[in-house]
Amino acid sequence: MRIPIKDVTPAVERAHIAGWVHEERDLGGLTFLLVRDRTGILQVTIPKKKVTPEVLAAVKDATRESVIECEGVVKATEKAPGGRELVPETLRVISRAETPLPLDVSEKVLADLDTRLDNRYLDLRKPRINAIFQIRNACLRAISEYLWDQKFTQVQTPKIVAAATEGGTELFPLAYFDKEAFLNQSPQLYKQMLMSAGFDRVFEIGAIFRAEEHNTARHLNEATSIDIEMSFADEEDAMKMLENVVASAYAYVAEHCGDALETLGITDFKVPTVPFPRITYKEAIEISTAGGEPLVFGDDLSTAAERVVGEKMGTMYFITEWPTSTRPFYTMPFADRPEVCRAFDMMHPRMELTSGAQRCHIHSLLVEQIKAKGLNPDAFEFYLNPFRYGMPPHAGWGLGAERLVMTMLDLQNIREAVLFPRDRHRVSP
Amino acid sequence: MRIPIKDVTPAVERAHIAGWVHEERDLGGLTFLLVRDRTGILQVTIPKKKVTPEVLAAVKDATRESVIECEGVVKATEKAPGGRELVPETLRVISRAETPLPLDVSEKVLADLDTRLDNRYLDLRKPRINAIFQIRNACLRAISEYLWDQKFTQVQTPKIVAAATEGGTELFPLAYFDKEAFLNQSPQLYKQMLMSAGFDRVFEIGAIFRAEEHNTARHLNEATSIDIEMSFADEEDAMKMLENVVASAYAYVAEHCGDALETLGITDFKVPTVPFPRITYKEAIEISTAGGEPLVFGDDLSTAAERVVGEKMGTMYFITEWPTSTRPFYTMPFADRPEVCRAFDMMHPRMELTSGAQRCHIHSLLVEQIKAKGLNPDAFEFYLNPFRYGMPPHAGWGLGAERLVMTMLDLQNIREAVLFPRDRHRVSP
Repeated sequence: MRIPIKDVTPAVERAHIAGWVHEERDLGGLTFLLVRDRTGILQVTIPKKKVTPEVLAAVKDATRESVIECEGVVKATEKAPGGRELVPETLRVISRAETPLPLDVSEKVLADLDTRLDNRYLDLRKPRINAIFQIRNACLRAISEYLWDQKFTQVQTPKIVAAATEGGTELFPLAYFDKEAFLNQSPQLYKQMLMSAGFDRVFEIGAIFRAEEHNTARHLNEATSIDIEMSFADEEDAMKMLENVVASAYAYVAEHCGDALETLGITDFKVPTVPFPRITYKEAIEISTAGGEPLVFGDDLSTAAERVVGEKMGTMYFITEWPTSTRPFYTMPFADRPEVCRAFDMMHPRMELTSGAQRCHIHSLLVEQIKAKGLNPDAFEFYLNPFRYGMPPHAGWGLGAERLVMTMLDLQNIREAVLFPRDRHRVSP
Repeated sequence: MRIPIKDVTPAVERAHIAGWVHEERDLGGLTFLLVRDRTGILQVTIPKKKVTPEVLAAVKDATRESVIECEGVVKATEKAPGGRELVPETLRVISRAETPLPLDVSEKVLADLDTRLDNRYLDLRKPRINAIFQIRNACLRAISEYLWDQKFTQVQTPKIVAAATEGGTELFPLAYFDKEAFLNQSPQLYKQMLMSAGFDRVFEIGAIFRAEEHNTARHLNEATSIDIEMSFADEEDAMKMLENVVASAYAYVAEHCGDALETLGITDFKVPTVPFPRITYKEAIEISTAGGEPLVFGDDLSTAAERVVGEKMGTMYFITEWPTSTRPFYTMPFADRPEVCRAFDMMHPRMELTSGAQRCHIHSLLVEQIKAKGLNPDAFEFYLNPFRYGMPPHAGWGLGAERLVMTMLDLQNIREAVLFPRDRHRVSP
């Protein structure tokens, strides 16, 4: 029985392992192969005079990054990683790697991001890169389980849609037989229809698509969005759910991903404390203006402003009470001061992670707000009908999985948080 | 505090609830409102002479399917559903439904599927329809948790791709800036690249897209696929994982979805026993031929043949050892008889649920097999490269979430298992 490399200890005495040749060193009478699997690295020590000719031939054939398997005796040794080595009785090359490799996996040679992404199957073999995706998996697991425990129903809404969520920009058009269709920018309108359908609490973790022309270190054209919507709830209920969801992801990573954090060199991983502080939009533009990034009511927060406010806050925080003009048509304005609305952003000191709001559930007001954005309500008939036949008040948010991972691990480029990123210039591999 | 309707019992004495007006009956001095939320139905009894004029006015305003909230005293009564009723002290219409409704929610009037799907937000309010999606959620939860426990990493692979998984047919083309792109038919090639990347075990639950022209009761143009891939594994390892995954979904539903099964009128829900029986393709065509659906080696199993074999088997089962010619290029043939391959289908007596196989991990053989299908290996360079630099043997499968739910609940049309189906003619809502 093959065992994971991290389970190979002197205590097991014998082991059968398989993995990739991470490094090879020939010291004359001795050859060392460092063999890597998802769980760790093991030194396989080959005393040339003591092994069979078959083993010797296989070792000679085992180029770097070849897949091999071997079985033999495990011995304690202080000189090898993890304090143990395996001396093989059998060793076989399962899949020989051609030479030279298009990308160095041992991380001794630095490659630029484009070269790495072109050869992503090799890049992902690096323990440091693989660790990112173990942590991404842990985050999504923690979030799914938290929401299930909170009685959310997981849903899958269509990615091929006939209308834009927020109007006509930034859409990928699609030939859907004889019809015009698009890739969905967000499950927003579908989540809301499910509130009318009585689903009460839903979440979706799925692909979203934005045909944004600009190419930055924090935008993707295809991303994974974590979306929730809850009925009989206001923006404060949605914010509470959000801070708990985010804290649960951090707590899960702290508890279960110690090895991955160590591989990434993260020694000061902190689980954020809830509740996150709340400041109003008005306070945010005051802080930004005082910090040298002047803003007036109605401005969006620039990247520079986000940085100024983030530095001052020093932790994750909410910005509430946004100008209605800056938010999508489906946002609920305050009844007594309609120039401000029940929207919020959740911010990491580095950048925005989440947009959310109590939504407008009143049909006539929604039609007005669609018109006020210069859109035609007829194009949204499929979405507006549910509001005419019993729609509860509701609130929700969308959290970008990549931004969550990027800020959690302090990655410099959002592409580092996606297996196979899609951007303005990249649609392969 | 609002409580779910299923928690309203005489023991709570007072309750605050919110929901949709399911039915209304006026008996002169008494009005009954049946109020529905996701969890159940409650009779709200209004003795006209004993309530405030505000409550009376609200009751008059509360058309069927309006959203209301009310608070009052809970009393035991044998005459009402669940043996209790609520007599409201306050009652408020939150969102009034227009009349007439475009679709009857009480299930007294039957509507055809198209009308139902056009008004899906109303259709989904029917307890019987809602129950399907509670069970779908339970299945995906059970499967996710089972695979996480088996040390699978959940991944998200791109939906926008530059090359077809299995050649050029059945693809939705896409305008991706200045490039040609498609919606992915399956995460197959990406899952395999992750095996080369050392991920060892991955799963994905995500959207897949097939531009199939035909419109049947068991095909969708957008569906949710549950995909796994595992390294150092053969087709038997993959089959074992699959039968355990499916059995875990059934067991979870049996344990946690009693109410939903009852709502659906399912009284004989059975968890399948593992292992599922295995028959070879050769045995399957013999059974089919003997049953009046003649097939010869190399034929695909027709719908009629599936039915004949399914009736004979009477349970979920595997068909193994398929003709290599009938399977995709990435399937591993048997070394000693290459006309047969390490592929399997998992069958429900009604239809196929899953295709899987040990994959071909040998670069030269894969190139040959791509050519043998009349495809050009150059188009698959991004996929083939990983096989040149260390690819472990691996196996996996893809299970359609909709077919799993459809067969589990004996639904007649696969559209019943999707919130907002996409077919040849439908791209909205």
